[in-house]
Amino acid sequence: MVKVYRKAQFINALKEGDFVDDVFVVKIKKGISQYSKGYSFELLLSDNTGKNLDYKYWGGADEEKIKLLYSSISYDAIVHVQGKVSFYNGKNQLATNEPFIIEPLSPEQYDLQDFIKSNKQDIEKMYSNLIRSIGLVQNKDLKSLLEKIFNDEGFAKKFKQHPASIEIHHNWVSGLLQHTLEVLNYCMSSANMFPELNKDLLITGALLHDIGKLEELVVSSRVKGSIKGQLVGHLPLGLIYVSNKIDEIDGFDQNLKNKVLHMITSHHGKTEYGSPKEPMFPEAVALYYADEMSSKIAEILEFIELSKDDTEDEFIYNRRHKKNIYLK
Amino acid sequence: MVKVYRKAQFINALKEGDFVDDVFVVKIKKGISQYSKGYSFELLLSDNTGKNLDYKYWGGADEEKIKLLYSSISYDAIVHVQGKVSFYNGKNQLATNEPFIIEPLSPEQYDLQDFIKSNKQDIEKMYSNLIRSIGLVQNKDLKSLLEKIFNDEGFAKKFKQHPASIEIHHNWVSGLLQHTLEVLNYCMSSANMFPELNKDLLITGALLHDIGKLEELVVSSRVKGSIKGQLVGHLPLGLIYVSNKIDEIDGFDQNLKNKVLHMITSHHGKTEYGSPKEPMFPEAVALYYADEMSSKIAEILEFIELSKDDTEDEFIYNRRHKKNIYLK
Amino acid sequence: MVKVYRKAQFINALKEGDFVDDVFVVKIKKGISQYSKGYSFELLLSDNTGKNLDYKYWGGADEEKIKLLYSSISYDAIVHVQGKVSFYNGKNQLATNEPFIIEPLSPEQYDLQDFIKSNKQDIEKMYSNLIRSIGLVQNKDLKSLLEKIFNDEGFAKKFKQHPASIEIHHNWVSGLLQHTLEVLNYCMSSANMFPELNKDLLITGALLHDIGKLEELVVSSRVKGSIKGQLVGHLPLGLIYVSNKIDEIDGFDQNLKNKVLHMITSHHGKTEYGSPKEPMFPEAVALYYADEMSSKIAEILEFIELSKDDTEDEFIYNRRHKKNIYLK
Amino acid sequence: MVKVYRKAQFINALKEGDFVDDVFVVKIKKGISQYSKGYSFELLLSDNTGKNLDYKYWGGADEEKIKLLYSSISYDAIVHVQGKVSFYNGKNQLATNEPFIIEPLSPEQYDLQDFIKSNKQDIEKMYSNLIRSIGLVQNKDLKSLLEKIFNDEGFAKKFKQHPASIEIHHNWVSGLLQHTLEVLNYCMSSANMFPELNKDLLITGALLHDIGKLEELVVSSRVKGSIKGQLVGHLPLGLIYVSNKIDEIDGFDQNLKNKVLHMITSHHGKTEYGSPKEPMFPEAVALYYADEMSSKIAEILEFIELSKDDTEDEFIYNRRHKKNIYLK
Amino acid sequence: MVKVYRKAQFINALKEGDFVDDVFVVKIKKGISQYSKGYSFELLLSDNTGKNLDYKYWGGADEEKIKLLYSSISYDAIVHVQGKVSFYNGKNQLATNEPFIIEPLSPEQYDLQDFIKSNKQDIEKMYSNLIRSIGLVQNKDLKSLLEKIFNDEGFAKKFKQHPASIEIHHNWVSGLLQHTLEVLNYCMSSANMFPELNKDLLITGALLHDIGKLEELVVSSRVKGSIKGQLVGHLPLGLIYVSNKIDEIDGFDQNLKNKVLHMITSHHGKTEYGSPKEPMFPEAVALYYADEMSSKIAEILEFIELSKDDTEDEFIYNRRHKKNIYLK
Amino acid sequence: MVKVYRKAQFINALKEGDFVDDVFVVKIKKGISQYSKGYSFELLLSDNTGKNLDYKYWGGADEEKIKLLYSSISYDAIVHVQGKVSFYNGKNQLATNEPFIIEPLSPEQYDLQDFIKSNKQDIEKMYSNLIRSIGLVQNKDLKSLLEKIFNDEGFAKKFKQHPASIEIHHNWVSGLLQHTLEVLNYCMSSANMFPELNKDLLITGALLHDIGKLEELVVSSRVKGSIKGQLVGHLPLGLIYVSNKIDEIDGFDQNLKNKVLHMITSHHGKTEYGSPKEPMFPEAVALYYADEMSSKIAEILEFIELSKDDTEDEFIYNRRHKKNIYLK
Repeated sequence: MVKVYRKAQFINALKEGDFVDDVFVVKIKKGISQYSKGYSFELLLSDNTGKNLDYKYWGGADEEKIKLLYSSISYDAIVHVQGKVSFYNGKNQLATNEPFIIEPLSPEQYDLQDFIKSNKQDIEKMYSNLIRSIGLVQNKDLKSLLEKIFNDEGFAKKFKQHPASIEIHHNWVSGLLQHTLEVLNYCMSSANMFPELNKDLLITGALLHDIGKLEELVVSSRVKGSIKGQLVGHLPLGLIYVSNKIDEIDGFDQNLKNKVLHMITSHHGKTEYGSPKEPMFPEAVALYYADEMSSKIAEILEFIELSKDDTEDEFIYNRRHKKNIYLK
Repeated sequence: MVKVYRKAQFINALKEGDFVDDVFVVKIKKGISQYSKGYSFELLLSDNTGKNLDYKYWGGADEEKIKLLYSSISYDAIVHVQGKVSFYNGKNQLATNEPFIIEPLSPEQYDLQDFIKSNKQDIEKMYSNLIRSIGLVQNKDLKSLLEKIFNDEGFAKKFKQHPASIEIHHNWVSGLLQHTLEVLNYCMSSANMFPELNKDLLITGALLHDIGKLEELVVSSRVKGSIKGQLVGHLPLGLIYVSNKIDEIDGFDQNLKNKVLHMITSHHGKTEYGSPKEPMFPEAVALYYADEMSSKIAEILEFIELSKDDTEDEFIYNRRHKKNIYLK
Repeated sequence: MVKVYRKAQFINALKEGDFVDDVFVVKIKKGISQYSKGYSFELLLSDNTGKNLDYKYWGGADEEKIKLLYSSISYDAIVHVQGKVSFYNGKNQLATNEPFIIEPLSPEQYDLQDFIKSNKQDIEKMYSNLIRSIGLVQNKDLKSLLEKIFNDEGFAKKFKQHPASIEIHHNWVSGLLQHTLEVLNYCMSSANMFPELNKDLLITGALLHDIGKLEELVVSSRVKGSIKGQLVGHLPLGLIYVSNKIDEIDGFDQNLKNKVLHMITSHHGKTEYGSPKEPMFPEAVALYYADEMSSKIAEILEFIELSKDDTEDEFIYNRRHKKNIYLK
Repeated sequence: MVKVYRKAQFINALKEGDFVDDVFVVKIKKGISQYSKGYSFELLLSDNTGKNLDYKYWGGADEEKIKLLYSSISYDAIVHVQGKVSFYNGKNQLATNEPFIIEPLSPEQYDLQDFIKSNKQDIEKMYSNLIRSIGLVQNKDLKSLLEKIFNDEGFAKKFKQHPASIEIHHNWVSGLLQHTLEVLNYCMSSANMFPELNKDLLITGALLHDIGKLEELVVSSRVKGSIKGQLVGHLPLGLIYVSNKIDEIDGFDQNLKNKVLHMITSHHGKTEYGSPKEPMFPEAVALYYADEMSSKIAEILEFIELSKDDTEDEFIYNRRHKKNIYLK
Repeated sequence: MVKVYRKAQFINALKEGDFVDDVFVVKIKKGISQYSKGYSFELLLSDNTGKNLDYKYWGGADEEKIKLLYSSISYDAIVHVQGKVSFYNGKNQLATNEPFIIEPLSPEQYDLQDFIKSNKQDIEKMYSNLIRSIGLVQNKDLKSLLEKIFNDEGFAKKFKQHPASIEIHHNWVSGLLQHTLEVLNYCMSSANMFPELNKDLLITGALLHDIGKLEELVVSSRVKGSIKGQLVGHLPLGLIYVSNKIDEIDGFDQNLKNKVLHMITSHHGKTEYGSPKEPMFPEAVALYYADEMSSKIAEILEFIELSKDDTEDEFIYNRRHKKNIYLK
Repeated sequence: MVKVYRKAQFINALKEGDFVDDVFVVKIKKGISQYSKGYSFELLLSDNTGKNLDYKYWGGADEEKIKLLYSSISYDAIVHVQGKVSFYNGKNQLATNEPFIIEPLSPEQYDLQDFIKSNKQDIEKMYSNLIRSIGLVQNKDLKSLLEKIFNDEGFAKKFKQHPASIEIHHNWVSGLLQHTLEVLNYCMSSANMFPELNKDLLITGALLHDIGKLEELVVSSRVKGSIKGQLVGHLPLGLIYVSNKIDEIDGFDQNLKNKVLHMITSHHGKTEYGSPKEPMFPEAVALYYADEMSSKIAEILEFIELSKDDTEDEFIYNRRHKKNIYLK
């Protein structure tokens, strides 16, 4: 029976002098060099803490062997590493000296959850909250559509695990589900404040707006964009998916179809953010801002979480938004 | 005792052939012309329906008298008008022929409520909701600040009546109060979803963010910008006001002061929207989007309400946002 | 048997004093007014020259009858008009005085070709040029796709007649076909100059890029946007259509599918022009510029054609592009 | 009595082989590493020439001792260093080998002037020029306001020393005073050329426009932004300050107050540069351009001064303005 | 001998009831209409006050005669008009009833100065100030260049009269000379404040920067763009002119030539304002801001001058800059 | 007789362990360092493959000698190098150990063609294609102009060799000629599709639009911008050149001159891309898009060619256009 390595030593908790015997994911391969005693190579490792770790393998004089080892480790591979942590150039570095080892693992030898950031919330509870919201929908066409999609077992299994983005925000297990619920919550707040809004449309828009992300992102040892996702984008992929699901329902109201497709098309709010159409009715406006609010608050909280240990300053520069973020 | 004219005939309900004997506000004065029987003048009238009405006075040959009458009617004046509605150039027109009259009224002769769009909600209930939210604040500095401001009777009286803008959104009696509560609601939704957010700061920001509007807008027979408001703006006026109120509280935490001022400074979200600083911490981000969400949803609902009767088309063009709005 | 009115008197050729007995389309209804002898109403008429004509009906004192006549004429209706051309306010005006008439026509009474700008080129020849280009495609998946779509008789019939836009460019019978061929020509020029380009992809992209316009625009008595088109847009509609057509072909190469969908997604070139993705490979770049070149040259030629008679100046201002156009 | 170290060896004049025994400021701490003979650490030093210097301390085998020394040196500290200059990787590097030392100094041991770029002009003369301009103001309200502020001794002391920015322009001792005088000079030129301009308003605006910088920037061993400055900004801080000073003057004309506050609010010229209002009257326009002219000319001169020794090229790229600057 | 009509009755001073017998320029021709007694036509007149005046000619029943008269009056013509001022639709209107006349004049019959806004300053004094500045130039190449150009008698005659723009700013007789001197003054202020700046280059840049306007604008009965000016622009026209003048000087320093051409090329400051290059050295930066300062202050002063009589409001909207201007 | 070194070992084909004895160009000088056995220095080398190569010289203990050698090698120099290729830090590195050498060469010792990317097409054939297009011009003024320019032998020699840019696109021997022909081809395609276009103007515009690049770029051991080119730009330089050539032709039609100059002025299409005027007539629009199409397709093909070997990913990020490029 295959041994399964489970993670116990996390990068953000490593200290100088620790001996490490654990699994990591390879983010960057930095090449082989010659040194006084033979050949060495360097990697950049990561794990589900989102932090990186410099790695160095100090090999012997057998050039062939080191090259073989190096080429057996591919980009995005999960590796089992034994080595010691030292402090170099102001950062921790993990180094392996023989007879300690580094070896790539096959999928049966590790658990993917160890490499994707995990969710702090109860996934099943979140999903049943989502399903409950479908019960509130009164229009029978929209209710059929949502039930057809979200009650499908295979779909549900995938949707529960999917992240909402590669980085930036909700980039963890069930991130898409969590983001979808946040958007739903803001939409329900809007529906309560503004009785003119159509609650059925808001629920439908909230649940379906990012559904194209199931095809846009792929999750292996890390979250990354699929080729289809990079070339077509989650917004058109979602439109194609939902349009086809609607067409499978006999007698679905065509104006309602137009409205649902519009809400997906326009949910980025502005053409310069990638929406072919800008929101043209109130529910589409409400959905756009709900999506913004959920993603932008999550993003700044994530950013602070990730960077607050990197500085003693009160402020840290955020490159994506070109402004300082206050940390205190 | 002065007769008080109360409004009964609203512009959006007038029909060709109606005889009108009611009060209106003068929006535009269009000048005097000569015609076959003497001198006429034209006005553009309005009332709290937000609609406009063309007006024509057909006077006699006494040039002096007509000029005197015309100049007695000032821009923004409330006038008592008797006349008949006809349909001209595809629009209703109200015309006065002697012996019927048009006469400017003095403030005791009309009720301002007839000229500002009224609120559909219970003002006192809204204000007590606002006061109740102050009770949730646990930080004593912030609680003192909010109580000092919102428990002041004179302040409360003004705040309860104030609109939130000249046009665009929440431009009615208590519009500022209603908008403030909507922003508060979205902030509370955010606080519930994201436990990392500081609820005290969110409540404080929501309640104070638009407080400068009390000085920016003046309400006479219609909502308009004050000179101070046009030259300085509600954002700096709010900053000056809140900064001074804080300084009246002994020992107010200075970092908290900085944060509160930052939330006001940054609540337009981007420098190009008039914020000298963009949001630099999560509560400021949440406040910005709450403000956006409340105002943008209210704006499109208002726009549809005002324009849906003007077209039989499915779409109507919105000049401010340069896009069509779907009306069905 | 129904009399069919065919157009003979075109707006751009009318002269003061002409007696008119012909068909026009109603662009704007301007309402009824009272005048000394009774009731009149005004319209704005148009025909396939793209020019407008002011119209006035001088009716008698029977208010009911005039109102009935006015309301029988709907927006976008085709009307048969008898009247005389006068010169008023610097423009021609067509006026009907009884016993001459204006009457709305039913679809059997006119020929739609008289109201849509006609094409100067041979439609069948253009379509067979398009079909011939499919013969050049060597990849069997792409060839199947194009044949499946363009050899369908019902599709071909519609595609041959369709305009490419409401106004701006190629807004005439077969405009879409003509624009598609121009884009194809530029793509073939690129393929000849740059041997690295994949000619099959270029032909496929050229032929399919605007296919969503078949659902975006509707042609009645004039070209206008469908509700679906306004809410979803021709780019997503084209993606849904082509994606489904591809899925009907067994074993279609999935990477090729991604590329074809990318070319449609990105053919507006920039997100701010409504493309969710910007061109990411050379054929998509070539297609974008081919589309730009065809539409922008056609647009300025159209603009000059339409406006050159309106001014004696050397330059005329183009509002859409905010610059002067030189006419000499 | 404490020894005070005064600077004599400036970074821009150091040459390979020089022995250094002088004071520097610590800009970056780069961490400790192990090497063949023990432990070393690296710093980045700076002084008032605005140039940086790599620093390396080669310590012995006593790990505890080196760590203690390293942690005694804080970011922004002033240090006394003995060591030798070598040329490494194309740059000078200062290295300390025991028994030579590096030690942090306390504030009594150095003179702050050695670490802030000094001014080439006579500070007292500049300030008396500023005071003289107040004498030209004829409006008594504005004159009182300026006298109240600039005649205050504590204020004057601070204003005389303050820099105008962290980097970019006028970032030296008395930079704010110098910039204020330049803006004043341009305003006086404008007043002379355009007699319609109100000279009193121009002087007031010039003197007060950047007054918020006294709270925005703090000067320790280097110029940096205060937390208040980063969160609120010098423009709102100036508004609050001036508004309060005005309110202390009985009977200050309220329209004049609005104008003065407007000039401060709008002096960045455009909302995207952080002004909540754009200049709305001629003096505000003149002030905006005077501020631009002073700061942009100073900036390019500074940039050339700092970078001309770094290249033999005729051009050097300026990242902030995304263009090449010509150096010959 | 031809009678020369000199202007005495200016549009901004006309009052209801005035009888007018004076000269005007025709800005717009509005076409002929029929009325109860025959044929009338309308024009829009103007004069050097920059104000417009509605004009109506009430002709008799002889259609041929009125058409002949109307077509004898061309766009931009100078006309001699007799008529009476009435107040119609809130504006003055000048109307001619026979036997009073309107007649087009030939160039000998009027003085052009009456139709171009005149300058309030002494032209010869301004020009000698400009010439005096050339005396300050020490570099012999630059001095030769400036003398060659500005000492040419034909050139001087044209330069002295030329306006600096069609509207917006300095759009009057000698406007170009006046603007050039203002730019020179700001440049001299900069040279005094910043000793690093090269005074010779500043003077040269100031004097030559807008020299292409001599070819860009033509002055007939009003200031308008030449075809060459509209198609090529004053910036390239100036470059061609100056480049050729330099090439006529033997041994002119080539790097200096590059710098002078750069200052002309870059004086609009940003590519989006039409400069192919942005300022790359300090003197080019100083010139750009001097040009901005002169034109923007002149523009707002002009705007207020022209519009302050049109409103009783404190603010008036400026379309070009999309903001309100404060008038009090 | 001088030995001429011809290139045989190209950077993109070097492998670890190769011994190199060949010529390279020096792109960056990285300074001298001390190491255990003496002094070393580093360079960055390049050749006409467009690829870079790290270089290290390991010298002995004679500091003077190494410094002399280092300073004899100037930036942009051509060097003769002997050394060995190793693999270091994931990249190839060429290292010289004495007695092998590195030495700068004088111009007679190498062939410039080895350092500029060569063209894959037949230069003489391309030029005769260009000359043939002049034969198609029917307007005698335009024909004279083109013949005067392109039949000049000295001009032709230079034009045949010139690149079209420093990097980005067509940055190789004859790149300008090749780009000019591509633009011509697209213009001819446009002329064939749109008979309203003036073919003579299109040919003239295509041939002359980038002629200023002859003065903008200089070719030594690499392509770089001339000082004149950087300060003035190829667009104004082209305008000056063509304007003067036209003026040498007696009786050249002045409106035609304006049009030709306009096509050069406007060929970047938008002011923000550096055109003082945007295209104002159809031929100028067609030229702009032809230029865009040629350069943008060439650019992405170049980019893929250069970067496809640098990654195993399907996508590579393009910094200039801020998007991923798909490589498969």
